[in-house]
Amino acid sequence: MIKDGKIFQGGILTAKRILSGMRPTGKLHLGNLHGALKNWVDLQNQGTYECFYFVADWHALTSDYSSTDSIRENIIDMVIDWLSVGLDPRKSTLFVQSKIREHAELFLLLSMITPLAWLERNPTYKEMKEELTNRDLSTFGFLGYPVLQAADIIMYKAHGVPVGVDQLPHVELTREITRRFNFLYREIFPIPEPLLTNVPKLLGIDGRKMSKSYDNSIFISDRGDALNRKIMAMFTDPQRMRKTDPGRPELCNVFSFHGLYSEEAAVGEIEVECRRAGIGCIECKKRLAARIAGELKTVHERQDYYRSHMDEVRGIIDDGNARALKIARATMEEVREAVKI
Amino acid sequence: MIKDGKIFQGGILTAKRILSGMRPTGKLHLGNLHGALKNWVDLQNQGTYECFYFVADWHALTSDYSSTDSIRENIIDMVIDWLSVGLDPRKSTLFVQSKIREHAELFLLLSMITPLAWLERNPTYKEMKEELTNRDLSTFGFLGYPVLQAADIIMYKAHGVPVGVDQLPHVELTREITRRFNFLYREIFPIPEPLLTNVPKLLGIDGRKMSKSYDNSIFISDRGDALNRKIMAMFTDPQRMRKTDPGRPELCNVFSFHGLYSEEAAVGEIEVECRRAGIGCIECKKRLAARIAGELKTVHERQDYYRSHMDEVRGIIDDGNARALKIARATMEEVREAVKI
Repeated sequence: MIKDGKIFQGGILTAKRILSGMRPTGKLHLGNLHGALKNWVDLQNQGTYECFYFVADWHALTSDYSSTDSIRENIIDMVIDWLSVGLDPRKSTLFVQSKIREHAELFLLLSMITPLAWLERNPTYKEMKEELTNRDLSTFGFLGYPVLQAADIIMYKAHGVPVGVDQLPHVELTREITRRFNFLYREIFPIPEPLLTNVPKLLGIDGRKMSKSYDNSIFISDRGDALNRKIMAMFTDPQRMRKTDPGRPELCNVFSFHGLYSEEAAVGEIEVECRRAGIGCIECKKRLAARIAGELKTVHERQDYYRSHMDEVRGIIDDGNARALKIARATMEEVREAVKI
Repeated sequence: MIKDGKIFQGGILTAKRILSGMRPTGKLHLGNLHGALKNWVDLQNQGTYECFYFVADWHALTSDYSSTDSIRENIIDMVIDWLSVGLDPRKSTLFVQSKIREHAELFLLLSMITPLAWLERNPTYKEMKEELTNRDLSTFGFLGYPVLQAADIIMYKAHGVPVGVDQLPHVELTREITRRFNFLYREIFPIPEPLLTNVPKLLGIDGRKMSKSYDNSIFISDRGDALNRKIMAMFTDPQRMRKTDPGRPELCNVFSFHGLYSEEAAVGEIEVECRRAGIGCIECKKRLAARIAGELKTVHERQDYYRSHMDEVRGIIDDGNARALKIARATMEEVREAVKI
């Protein structure tokens, strides 16, 4: 029930909720860290919201239905990375979508009220179809993944959805579907707001978008020589051929990383020195590698801990699933009453 | 597991299964009786098959998502009619789709592997859109209802699907989706065969297709004066204006009904007498009314019994749901293992 913009579940006022999810791509890279995870951790630690973060394994099937061998392993790898960067299962509910089967039922019910045209005009639908030309994506499920996303979000009566700007059209679709449900049946769901995440522009080591499928990622788990080699291989200003050429930091991906990992004074110094060829790319990268390694140290310690305590990881997931399931069950009881089915 | 064309579930060979469903339209008419139900009862009594018959209430939402007020009442009314015409819960499993939530999960998984083009070329998709122009049917769920139908059928590993000829394209779609699942993941499901039901041509009392929405139906529950009035109102050969005009039985809907309800000798006599104006339409209809009333007598007695034993009806449904659920759970365990999710 919604009253004065506040949510009551079983008569009890609940805190404002946010929900966000990630496909189980396995170990995460720095693009994931700065594009989403750091923000998730911040929202968790602010204490303003009840945070729900989920592994969107059913969503992985929209594009990877024909190669599912690694999904289960990827789920574990990803959750270990979540925990290692600071998501705290005592503060946030971490769960796996496919274990909460209620999502499928709500997806089915929402699919009945969602006009096809809303899905066909989804800008990312055409985009993804164009990008991933090597797979047959013209499936019914792929067209409908914003409907599943809507089910994921409103199942927990989320008020906020932390997303990057590219995801805004999906949240808008969720809002439209939610309004339609509330209008057709009963006002059960708050209309979720997008919480826009400021995503810094981090490219892969080859200068393209950092993506696991491009094989150009620096992983959160990279350390030691592996990490150094990747940073040393990073593309810089393409016009700077020799150390004696002056560089253009604004075009350099390594410089962008310094902006995130080095202290302000150091960033300022590198900018000046690069422009007057006072520092070479190798030296610049060495400094970056040291900063990243320093910052990831705690993350790597946590990774080592969880890797040797897999039962604990599984226990955390089971516990999160149980918490999510309880809410999902209560929501679906309300939904079935409202739809009268 | 499939071995030598036989189905094993938990290592045990199961009998051949058939499955069919009906949307909960409420009380049924003679078109439903002769088009499907009589065949369901025959298949049940043959003993060759394990029979599963279900109320397709989620399917009702594909066209009626905005008016769900009567679904629950319609389910009870329809099941009472099922029982009254001879479906026997000791022999057949009668259940309600929405109570077996596993159907929604399988629908979701099948939606990921079903090419959009298969659904868009579904001939009944365009037809229904054209017929039901007063409702907005261009929803994602309406496009996908053959996927839900496929989930309904293969959940029980049905070998046969009793259908009328108009439903053949749907069974063909189910077969294609099933083959694709077996190919992509693991050969879990038998490819279901359509069991073609011979549907006699029974029109409504106004000469159009008998349909609840045309208000031209003779209901299984019609009796006494109500039944007589409807039969007296039936259209006959439009060129036979007076009793002295010779009639053309082959164009007369009342004559079609005689073919189903009267004895062969009586049908032959009516044909001869009609052609030579020896029997008038009123007399002919009176005879038909008597035959139908006679044949529905037992049905009406059973209806009266169940109407005054509603707890028993609810118990029968609960029991059927429990039997269906057990199988659906086992199937979904296999499915999740195969999809590796």
